[in-house]
Amino acid sequence: MNMTKKLTGMTALGLSLFASLPVWAQEAAAEATEAVAEAAPEFAAAVDTAFIFNTLLFLIGGFLVFFMAAGFAMLEAGLVRSKNVTMQLTKNIALFSIAGIAFWLIGYNLMYPGDAWTITGYVGTIFSPKDIGGDADLATGYSAGSDFFFQLMFCAATASIVSGTLAERIKLWPFLIFTVVLTGVIYPIEASWQWGGGWLSEAGFSDFAGSTLVHAAGGFAALAGAVILGPRLGKYGKDGKVNPMPGSNLGLATLGTFILWMGWFGFNGGSQLALGTAADANAVSVIFVNTNMAASAGAVMAMILTQVIYKKVDLTMVLNGALAGLVSITAGPLDPTIFGAIWIGAIGGVIVVFAVPMLDKLKIDDVVGAIPVHLIAGFWGTMAVPFYTEGTSFVMQFVGFASIGIFVTVASAIVWIVLKSTMGLRPSQEDEMLGLDKAELGLEAYPEFAKG
Amino acid sequence: MNMTKKLTGMTALGLSLFASLPVWAQEAAAEATEAVAEAAPEFAAAVDTAFIFNTLLFLIGGFLVFFMAAGFAMLEAGLVRSKNVTMQLTKNIALFSIAGIAFWLIGYNLMYPGDAWTITGYVGTIFSPKDIGGDADLATGYSAGSDFFFQLMFCAATASIVSGTLAERIKLWPFLIFTVVLTGVIYPIEASWQWGGGWLSEAGFSDFAGSTLVHAAGGFAALAGAVILGPRLGKYGKDGKVNPMPGSNLGLATLGTFILWMGWFGFNGGSQLALGTAADANAVSVIFVNTNMAASAGAVMAMILTQVIYKKVDLTMVLNGALAGLVSITAGPLDPTIFGAIWIGAIGGVIVVFAVPMLDKLKIDDVVGAIPVHLIAGFWGTMAVPFYTEGTSFVMQFVGFASIGIFVTVASAIVWIVLKSTMGLRPSQEDEMLGLDKAELGLEAYPEFAKG
Amino acid sequence: MNMTKKLTGMTALGLSLFASLPVWAQEAAAEATEAVAEAAPEFAAAVDTAFIFNTLLFLIGGFLVFFMAAGFAMLEAGLVRSKNVTMQLTKNIALFSIAGIAFWLIGYNLMYPGDAWTITGYVGTIFSPKDIGGDADLATGYSAGSDFFFQLMFCAATASIVSGTLAERIKLWPFLIFTVVLTGVIYPIEASWQWGGGWLSEAGFSDFAGSTLVHAAGGFAALAGAVILGPRLGKYGKDGKVNPMPGSNLGLATLGTFILWMGWFGFNGGSQLALGTAADANAVSVIFVNTNMAASAGAVMAMILTQVIYKKVDLTMVLNGALAGLVSITAGPLDPTIFGAIWIGAIGGVIVVFAVPMLDKLKIDDVVGAIPVHLIAGFWGTMAVPFYTEGTSFVMQFVGFASIGIFVTVASAIVWIVLKSTMGLRPSQEDEMLGLDKAELGLEAYPEFAKG
Repeated sequence: MNMTKKLTGMTALGLSLFASLPVWAQEAAAEATEAVAEAAPEFAAAVDTAFIFNTLLFLIGGFLVFFMAAGFAMLEAGLVRSKNVTMQLTKNIALFSIAGIAFWLIGYNLMYPGDAWTITGYVGTIFSPKDIGGDADLATGYSAGSDFFFQLMFCAATASIVSGTLAERIKLWPFLIFTVVLTGVIYPIEASWQWGGGWLSEAGFSDFAGSTLVHAAGGFAALAGAVILGPRLGKYGKDGKVNPMPGSNLGLATLGTFILWMGWFGFNGGSQLALGTAADANAVSVIFVNTNMAASAGAVMAMILTQVIYKKVDLTMVLNGALAGLVSITAGPLDPTIFGAIWIGAIGGVIVVFAVPMLDKLKIDDVVGAIPVHLIAGFWGTMAVPFYTEGTSFVMQFVGFASIGIFVTVASAIVWIVLKSTMGLRPSQEDEMLGLDKAELGLEAYPEFAKG
Repeated sequence: MNMTKKLTGMTALGLSLFASLPVWAQEAAAEATEAVAEAAPEFAAAVDTAFIFNTLLFLIGGFLVFFMAAGFAMLEAGLVRSKNVTMQLTKNIALFSIAGIAFWLIGYNLMYPGDAWTITGYVGTIFSPKDIGGDADLATGYSAGSDFFFQLMFCAATASIVSGTLAERIKLWPFLIFTVVLTGVIYPIEASWQWGGGWLSEAGFSDFAGSTLVHAAGGFAALAGAVILGPRLGKYGKDGKVNPMPGSNLGLATLGTFILWMGWFGFNGGSQLALGTAADANAVSVIFVNTNMAASAGAVMAMILTQVIYKKVDLTMVLNGALAGLVSITAGPLDPTIFGAIWIGAIGGVIVVFAVPMLDKLKIDDVVGAIPVHLIAGFWGTMAVPFYTEGTSFVMQFVGFASIGIFVTVASAIVWIVLKSTMGLRPSQEDEMLGLDKAELGLEAYPEFAKG
Repeated sequence: MNMTKKLTGMTALGLSLFASLPVWAQEAAAEATEAVAEAAPEFAAAVDTAFIFNTLLFLIGGFLVFFMAAGFAMLEAGLVRSKNVTMQLTKNIALFSIAGIAFWLIGYNLMYPGDAWTITGYVGTIFSPKDIGGDADLATGYSAGSDFFFQLMFCAATASIVSGTLAERIKLWPFLIFTVVLTGVIYPIEASWQWGGGWLSEAGFSDFAGSTLVHAAGGFAALAGAVILGPRLGKYGKDGKVNPMPGSNLGLATLGTFILWMGWFGFNGGSQLALGTAADANAVSVIFVNTNMAASAGAVMAMILTQVIYKKVDLTMVLNGALAGLVSITAGPLDPTIFGAIWIGAIGGVIVVFAVPMLDKLKIDDVVGAIPVHLIAGFWGTMAVPFYTEGTSFVMQFVGFASIGIFVTVASAIVWIVLKSTMGLRPSQEDEMLGLDKAELGLEAYPEFAKG
């Protein structure tokens, strides 16, 4: 029996003390520690356990948020007219793919600049992508790759929001180039202010999973685009009449909403960022419940309101009500009681029902209702945080929301204007009337189904 | 080195004994325990590990069962005619949303009454929703929130079953009001008899994941509704002829079935209720395998039978065969061998093929085949338990099934009749012919696709 | 305090040594070990932890790969003409169901023959299905059931690949009988060569998650079938003109691609086969990231190339580009850097754009492009392994690919030829023109949507 080996757990100080003991006392102590040593393999597993749980949360959360890309694609494909469905599908799979590459190449570094909070520092990080493929670093508490995977999905979600608003009237390539800038530069910079340890987080702004950072940001980018792009041909008559352009496939739209709802469990739950303790597991559970409750409340509220106001329940409002409930709870899904989650989500549903026609009055053409759902409900969710979360303030929440809003809107507007004045944003009127599928892609989504 | 601090693991008794030792012996013992103390953070993680695993099982199982709401929505939207698709989608997202609120507000308390097994006790729990957002309670072994999340999804699934049977001929609001009662009161009460520690569980009834408690219960509520509501206009000719009314989109119906199949891994696997030991992980694995095998067998059996009987494989029967296989194994997915799971599931497939036309003979109009799939295969699954599970009996299984059947049928019938005699259940004949989408909602699911 | 009980962790040697100590020294040592003893329940949990994590990886990976069955179904249903959609859906749910039973009954044993590497041994294992329902065996490190579940999904995926290529012109039953042989015999044998510890694994072939074993194998089976079956009527004009037969529902096709993409995280990530250490969790994370990056790169590359070559982005090429990127990275998703994953995936995208028209020149009619995506990109992925994985060689990779290719092609061709010469593979020309849905199944997927 090698006594020294058995006692490797002891400190140097302890060892010298130990050496001064008589032999038989050393033996007694050695015997005692043997039990520990024999349990060593289990100790090794336990050392890793929290790391594995944390990583697993990012991976499960990540694939759920990944699936939101499919949710956005189905929602948008269902809410555009059939002549633009192929284009909408193309934009959605393309924007997700582009986001992956742009976020890796530029965005991830911008978002976590470490000490490089200067212009030079920012520039220095560009095109020097972090290596996330190294060995497991137990000290960080989770796998670097799992964090990258999870963060990427949030970046891509931001871009997905934009595509819905601008549907049916923007050419493919300018949209994709905008996506490169949004996912590679604009989102990572504003996200770094909070999640990268930047000035907003230091100032006390609170946005748990991104009501502002993801949803409102996507909404602002969409809003800037919608204003610069203008509405679809024929959407707003000269007499002020709003012409409804109903979605072509509400089955897909509903499927998309359910997929987004499911993905949101990963979106909000994964944003706990840890699963390695019972307290974390409990927190993730509370987040799942609150997230679900807010969505339910948003949907029910939209259902009741459309019944009361229009005497008919409007499915698209119910779908957007659920989504607005989800966006509303995203800034603070952990702290509210269930009742809190319900009323926060319900107000999200109210927002949708009133904001959708309001945008039409402003002649801002938002094809899928993304601005009410993501921007306005995102504002509401951000402002609702101080009701339940200690250490937050309405003022600071407003400052955070406004700062990100101004930055994203201005940056997006510049990119949209540059694209408009160079390659142009809109197809010709003939192409738009014909539909982008035939005009730009030469491929119809439903080539065999006669148009009624 | 603070010796006292290092020895905090010791009991008070131990400490007094320790104090009586000479100093150098104290030092020896202290050194020995230091190794343990240094490992303390890992100990802390290990304490939580089972709690985290159990909670994680509920959360993963829960989001999979959540997704079954999408599965039901797609299955039903695909199996109704296109003029009622928006309505079916609306009902599905609405019922899920309502279930969330009703189960929280009333149902969850009714389902776990603790000591309140009297009428007064029941009433007392209503409108005093349990708080599930507190700190993690290690003693329970899982997060209260994760349990609520998981249980809610079962409640919602019960309501989803009803919507399919009654499709195409029931107005939106009476259906939704029924949903409130079903998810807030009827389901929680019958579920409490078994899963809330009530009389059925004490009497030895066995229903692992809910062949009776969820599926047959949903089926009974649907059956009561179908009888009271009557068949769709034109479904049964005066000459006894059954007019087929084929579903409008078998792509969505198949997608819905696959989603339900996937969700069932969470439904049955999560019902193990624990993942904190190797034995539990092993049990969940066996459940996954048996669940999959029963579904496969049900589908294959329905395929072979429709080929033999009708000389043509019937996709809708294959889809329902898979679902019937799933329902059949749900009462006891852990104990059968794989071969057992296969024959249990296969008989589920047989049931579907013979029960669907049988219901038509009885002029019970079940639009999606939910009664054969959920009620009759649920009966079969419940009765099959004693073949593999020790301590169960055919008599007790029958008693449990019949008790729940009678309670749910009577309670549901009362609600349906009250709704019928007050606000009415059916739209006008004109509205039904026109389709509920145009008549009640003013929104078509496929507005551009001409009807053939 | 029972000292002996407290010291059960000690060895016999230790105990005799301990007994020779004076009482008060014994007491000191006993106190020290008490801390360990008190922590005993947590120790027990830790023993199981790795087992649970490993099992959980198989279960999560397994249900994700399960969902790929839905992905294939949607992709194929979207890419065939509406007159063959019900048939394509039927084939997909049927093949998955059949795979489950055939793999259990025969395949799983063939795939892991243990010592039975002779013809007699092989035959001996047939129809003597392994029992996977026993108690947890901690020594294996994971639940046997979870492994079976995971492996089954790979087998089924192989069969899913075949159905897409042969769509719109093969009768249901010969296809299903082929599926029985493929999933029960052909796939398990070739997979045993590598994953069952067979000669390819011993020779140093490397195929992490199955670029060759699953994807190319499915592609070879499809290729043999396509050649023997011949192209769809009217696909290739006598003047050499290729008649486009556009898919009927690109929404479903895109959904299918997103589902497959998500499922691939389970496919590749689960193939790490372990999650019980931080190193494994880290590896799974890297695999998730690389898998996602390869898909993104494949999609982007196909998008750019179709724009450059055809002046129009082709959505079906983008979808297949993403899938080809996924197949390409599947042989070695762990070792490449992110940049490596990107260029490996991008070449997958290139392959699709050039191989699809090439097959048409050879008059091999591959309805969904499965041969480029799974066989050719699978070849590329297999050959790319030595760029990043130590201990692999281009020669051995080629030998492995070619061996499996020859075996699967020859075995499949024999089965196809036997089926052709007995029950026949193709429907009559009239039936094919009418569409298999009406002709063979009597059930249309979209009965109400008029054909344009």
